[in-house]
Amino acid sequence: MRFSYLSHLECPRDGRSYDAGVPQKVCGCGSPLLARYDLKALAEGVTRDQISAGPPSLWRYHPLLPVSAPEAVVTLGEGLTPIVGLPKYGATIGVPRLVVKDEGLLPTGSFKGRGAAVGVSRAQELGITAIAMPTNGNAGAAWATYAARAGMAALIVMPVDAPEITRKECVVTGAQLYLVDGLIGDAGRIVERAVAQDGWFPVATLKEPYRLEGKKTMGFEIAEQLGWRVPDVIVYPTGGGVGLIGIYKAVLELQELGWIGEKLPRMVAVQASGCAPIVRAFERGADHAEPWQDAATVAFGINVPSAIGDFLILDAVRSTRGCAVAVSDEAILAELAACARGEGVFFCPEGAATLAAVRQLRESGWLDGSEEVLVLNTGAGIKYPNTVTADPPLLTVDGNVQSTGH
Amino acid sequence: MRFSYLSHLECPRDGRSYDAGVPQKVCGCGSPLLARYDLKALAEGVTRDQISAGPPSLWRYHPLLPVSAPEAVVTLGEGLTPIVGLPKYGATIGVPRLVVKDEGLLPTGSFKGRGAAVGVSRAQELGITAIAMPTNGNAGAAWATYAARAGMAALIVMPVDAPEITRKECVVTGAQLYLVDGLIGDAGRIVERAVAQDGWFPVATLKEPYRLEGKKTMGFEIAEQLGWRVPDVIVYPTGGGVGLIGIYKAVLELQELGWIGEKLPRMVAVQASGCAPIVRAFERGADHAEPWQDAATVAFGINVPSAIGDFLILDAVRSTRGCAVAVSDEAILAELAACARGEGVFFCPEGAATLAAVRQLRESGWLDGSEEVLVLNTGAGIKYPNTVTADPPLLTVDGNVQSTGH
Repeated sequence: MRFSYLSHLECPRDGRSYDAGVPQKVCGCGSPLLARYDLKALAEGVTRDQISAGPPSLWRYHPLLPVSAPEAVVTLGEGLTPIVGLPKYGATIGVPRLVVKDEGLLPTGSFKGRGAAVGVSRAQELGITAIAMPTNGNAGAAWATYAARAGMAALIVMPVDAPEITRKECVVTGAQLYLVDGLIGDAGRIVERAVAQDGWFPVATLKEPYRLEGKKTMGFEIAEQLGWRVPDVIVYPTGGGVGLIGIYKAVLELQELGWIGEKLPRMVAVQASGCAPIVRAFERGADHAEPWQDAATVAFGINVPSAIGDFLILDAVRSTRGCAVAVSDEAILAELAACARGEGVFFCPEGAATLAAVRQLRESGWLDGSEEVLVLNTGAGIKYPNTVTADPPLLTVDGNVQSTGH
Repeated sequence: MRFSYLSHLECPRDGRSYDAGVPQKVCGCGSPLLARYDLKALAEGVTRDQISAGPPSLWRYHPLLPVSAPEAVVTLGEGLTPIVGLPKYGATIGVPRLVVKDEGLLPTGSFKGRGAAVGVSRAQELGITAIAMPTNGNAGAAWATYAARAGMAALIVMPVDAPEITRKECVVTGAQLYLVDGLIGDAGRIVERAVAQDGWFPVATLKEPYRLEGKKTMGFEIAEQLGWRVPDVIVYPTGGGVGLIGIYKAVLELQELGWIGEKLPRMVAVQASGCAPIVRAFERGADHAEPWQDAATVAFGINVPSAIGDFLILDAVRSTRGCAVAVSDEAILAELAACARGEGVFFCPEGAATLAAVRQLRESGWLDGSEEVLVLNTGAGIKYPNTVTADPPLLTVDGNVQSTGH
């Protein structure tokens, strides 16, 4: 077994090939690049049982990851997050076979730890010593953290409205952090100017090929944890869409290896009604999404008016007979509260958007209620204290609780 | 294989036996009760390889846990947290073989999820429908969360100075939450009055026997993850001390089963110099700890002036040729920052207290620097935003980062 079966990088738009052995960014045509593996050799050299006997982290999938050797792995023990049933809450919305993959249980408390672990490992292996990125908060926190672990410099630029804890994470791990009075696109342009001026290596969403490889491990884990099969429907909160693209890529790779059957999960892209460019493009039958004006939502992580991977998201949704739906901030917060109280799972608002979408899709009849539906909770609720109002009574030391019974 | 080999409860002070089949609190003598297992039958019916083939959660140790059947398990996928090396930071303090078990990667972001998962599962199995507890924050958050999952009522009382996010966790999961203008002992007396009045089942630290059983899984995991052996030294931030007592109990159980060798890890109890009753008792050679006056520390989770399990903590420390040390708040915050920047691991202040202790023990010569030292980070740094000051520059959308290089 080779540690990695990475063979080359490929443009999904014009098919051009690129050398994976040196740092690459995007294709000459502007499209993101996708990592390709020698799946034929992999199928001959590796079995799924060997994968399952690996460590309890995303690194068990190392043959399908781009890092060439164990000693190049930069890790905080990330991966193999649990899939947890939500039967009681699911029953209340007419989807009793609802489950969640809880990505809050990763280093830095969000799914961004996956892309950062693999992306930083590969960047370091390719000789990169300083990375720069725009972020809505959690990606910056994750990349700053893994950069610190690798001994790399990091420049992070995030909107002033990004979750406050993510600032602290960047600062405590030693990143150079800037806020911008704007949105993630504005942060991106500031980073591009810094890259041009000071030679940082840019690692913005899909502007380098390896973050996606980390994110796709969600797809590997879903399949393996369900017994090497996929659920009927996978529901994903979509900003830049790397996770959705990654899960779909993972499913296709597992199918090509013969490790899962031919069934595809219907992929659902969920956006907030205050920032829904992918949903609009899906409804219009367009291949690309126009930038969204005046974007705003409580689910800040998906407040992405324009996504470079738009055509890949739309392709994943359509190829799997999925859909794209928008949900209101009110619905997001209501489902977040209902699921925490009913199931003890404290979603982040982006994750809770998937719950609102499931309710909506059941009401519209797109789901008939018999399906096994897996939603991704992309971050820990504890990173978003503002989603909950707590005003408990304050007692003196000789005070008493109210006798309300229980 | 039986699902659980639980046999009875035993008082470690007077040896009395109690029926484990009905709800129990403490011994008539006031001591905590310890769960005992039929280890002879277990050794004949279960192998460590069978354990290792189990699910990637603390429930793989089910034969050594008190829950009698799989369907009684209340779970959010907790356990098997990673052990991560800290070689760079360790080298700077003269202990290059330093590793951390990162308990921040559990549901609710702290090690308290272990005790809550097992405690709530067992409570529900025994017919308990409403639990009440005092807490310094994280235990309340965890028990409220698992109670919600089980459909149980929860009454939580915490000091007004407990971490604010833990209030939100209690409220969002539907617990009845009260704050007290005092310390955890004051919260405890309020809970006792509520229990007497309204019949809540009290689940304060070591006042019921099963939280400890959840906590001991840290010890099982440490041994299994290191290849069924123990490290030279285990360093634990000690408030109520349940984790330290639990790890020691786990080591003894594994030894009795013959699953690990006879070596004991030296157990180190770390406290804050602003609240160090166990350290004072250790230094005086006492078997019990006098309550600490005017307790205060930035590591709020270990701000416990008086612990019911004091004699068990002191016994574990002495029986393993360990020690108890106090560290200053300044040292805690300095090590927290140094380790985040150097290793990308963002400790909670209680966890960082163990780093300060390791430095101190190396400087004093108690550690010679050759030892494999495992510290417990008992919670995610992201639950403690106040340990980090972040005041990043705010740019306009056409602003630029400073060209400082990297």
